Amino acid sequence: MFKVNDNYLKLPGSYLFSTVAKKQRAFEAANPDKPVIRLSIGDVTQPLAPAIVEALHRAVDEMGNPETFRGYAPDLGYEFLRNAIAQNDYQALGCHIAPDEIFVSDGAKCDSGNIQEIFSVDNKIAVCDPVYPVYIDTNVMAGRTGTYDVTHGTWSDVIYMPCHAGNNFAPELPQETPDIIYLCFPNNPTGATITKAQLQEWVDYANRTGAVIIYDAAYEAYISEADVPHTIFACEGARTCAMELRSFSKNAGFTGVRLGFTVIPKELKCKGVTLHSLWARRHGTKYNGAPYIVQKAGEAVYSAEGKIQLAAQVNYYMENARIIKDGLEGAGYEVSGGVNAPYIWLKTPHNMTSWEFFDYLLERANVVGTPGSGFGPSGEGYLRLTAFGTRESTVAAVERIKHM
Amino acid sequence: MFKVNDNYLKLPGSYLFSTVAKKQRAFEAANPDKPVIRLSIGDVTQPLAPAIVEALHRAVDEMGNPETFRGYAPDLGYEFLRNAIAQNDYQALGCHIAPDEIFVSDGAKCDSGNIQEIFSVDNKIAVCDPVYPVYIDTNVMAGRTGTYDVTHGTWSDVIYMPCHAGNNFAPELPQETPDIIYLCFPNNPTGATITKAQLQEWVDYANRTGAVIIYDAAYEAYISEADVPHTIFACEGARTCAMELRSFSKNAGFTGVRLGFTVIPKELKCKGVTLHSLWARRHGTKYNGAPYIVQKAGEAVYSAEGKIQLAAQVNYYMENARIIKDGLEGAGYEVSGGVNAPYIWLKTPHNMTSWEFFDYLLERANVVGTPGSGFGPSGEGYLRLTAFGTRESTVAAVERIKHM
Repeated sequence: MFKVNDNYLKLPGSYLFSTVAKKQRAFEAANPDKPVIRLSIGDVTQPLAPAIVEALHRAVDEMGNPETFRGYAPDLGYEFLRNAIAQNDYQALGCHIAPDEIFVSDGAKCDSGNIQEIFSVDNKIAVCDPVYPVYIDTNVMAGRTGTYDVTHGTWSDVIYMPCHAGNNFAPELPQETPDIIYLCFPNNPTGATITKAQLQEWVDYANRTGAVIIYDAAYEAYISEADVPHTIFACEGARTCAMELRSFSKNAGFTGVRLGFTVIPKELKCKGVTLHSLWARRHGTKYNGAPYIVQKAGEAVYSAEGKIQLAAQVNYYMENARIIKDGLEGAGYEVSGGVNAPYIWLKTPHNMTSWEFFDYLLERANVVGTPGSGFGPSGEGYLRLTAFGTRESTVAAVERIKHM
Repeated sequence: MFKVNDNYLKLPGSYLFSTVAKKQRAFEAANPDKPVIRLSIGDVTQPLAPAIVEALHRAVDEMGNPETFRGYAPDLGYEFLRNAIAQNDYQALGCHIAPDEIFVSDGAKCDSGNIQEIFSVDNKIAVCDPVYPVYIDTNVMAGRTGTYDVTHGTWSDVIYMPCHAGNNFAPELPQETPDIIYLCFPNNPTGATITKAQLQEWVDYANRTGAVIIYDAAYEAYISEADVPHTIFACEGARTCAMELRSFSKNAGFTGVRLGFTVIPKELKCKGVTLHSLWARRHGTKYNGAPYIVQKAGEAVYSAEGKIQLAAQVNYYMENARIIKDGLEGAGYEVSGGVNAPYIWLKTPHNMTSWEFFDYLLERANVVGTPGSGFGPSGEGYLRLTAFGTRESTVAAVERIKHM
């Protein structure tokens, strides 16, 4: 008789965003006259930029032509894209990353979920609290997290690093030494960042303790301040302790196009085994490459026109962030984030819980946010709002919240 | 100190097709004057059909338009595609499969590699021998296969079901009872099929023993004979013991486009836990959907023009299969497959090993096949040739082999 992976059964409730979507659908069904504005999931709303659209059309035509048709892509991604990434995202910043240290994929969510596979089950992970749920949930599914404490919403074998107003939402070095450290800056969900000097401390700590840092830089395009690092490889020593996850979802609006990449330096190893070789093996065995047309779209992100058009798109969303932040601050709310990130982290008023305020906001303003508690216990009492709406809906949402 | 997943280190050598490609590259580098014809990896060569190209262009335009732009896809796939699949691939054949039992993905390789995750590590798997390497390798990576016997090329905890000329390359029910049974028909690599009555025996066996069948039907479009089933759900009782993997790679030339799906009936469960719910959870947590434009291309596969154009494409490849089969049989080789499948399974002459004949063919005919031994011990003494080349290269390859 076959048996299921019992670890899956330990997962409490369903995936955060599915629950949020269900609540929204229920409200809409009951209130068809009240249009809901969704500032919850970090999904973009601006159409693909013209340079991307043109690249896609060209690639589609290539695929329809016997001379230029392409079948299976190279396991780790086309060289044209890996070269563009290495040059623009790393070498241009003075960071030594070679094209063959870049693994092209269908997105940072998949990579951040799958990457734990190449590690032993008995590694101990450390995560920020609050945190992007995928990091923890995928480790639960792998059996790496111990037992769940329903009262506190925590796992017995996970090291939580609280991020709160008291530490500017930047985690402190943990007291217990972890094996794997997940860091995400600019942060989802808090919108907080850390300076290069602060990140250097993490790199030094990881090298000192033999930990590996999984650095999620999916939101790096939103950095506006000079001392906030765009990549962990800007730090001395990162090549021996860190890998980096990147996405085209937010900088180029690819949430529905699906493209991302992971960078693993060849020096990153455990007892002589490089993580690069293990991830390559996983890619080769369980993955079949991102679509050619999508990789060509990715290449266009680095074209001269692409860069201009996408900078405008990022600015558009960051103006939304400013509107939300200023509007809510003006209305007396306590907010953070939104300066180097497309997320605004809103303190709930009157000591409401996150879900109470979620419901309140949905009922009174017909606006959907994401409850902070869904990201971890230290997220309780907060709500995440995203800047990825249209200008019109963002302005309307802020007006509704101000007047509810 | 972090530790790696030691199971990865048990994998012998690199992925079969990587090794074949390396040998080809080495030969080409040493013999730039000898153009190599590649009948090894099952990669298509015909361009995307016009109906697909048009659908892609339309979808790209939608993505460039603010009114019709789409961000994240629904976790399990767009309804338009799941409806088209349910109607055309199942309901039209009288098989009861609902759209919400279909999980759209980026391909059958990924699904066949990831699906083992939802099962306990202590399940015992049974595979045909020879077999598509992904089934075994991904179970090795999960720690489910015991130790490797270098002499025999087998794993201690895997049940092998030999497929040879003596049983028409159709596996017999195993003596030891497995928990998970991988079956692939039409078969990769042998090109063999089984009848509906034979498949019904497997379904009955699985229901009787509490095993689950992972049925890979990636090549169903190539079935030409009436009593060969297109889906396991044509069998009575399959809904309580089977799931099915399907691909758009071979029937629609999507190897570089990436689209597939897995069907899990809601009745398939262990102690009240449905595999449907577990796979949905995996999709929601570790995957972010296939690109919208690719799902629209998938929908076009089921359009009236799409069906006509793709039937012609399948016929084109099957004519290649006939040319290879007839040509090699005429030259005195022992071959099978190629009637309901795009693969020809060629017995090596003069008791050569698979790799010996691979090298011989590369040196003498400058043709690349895939060594049968790479698919398992019972594949020793065979070579797989694919019908996915162009007509011109296929004819040329057969001429070269006949005259070497």
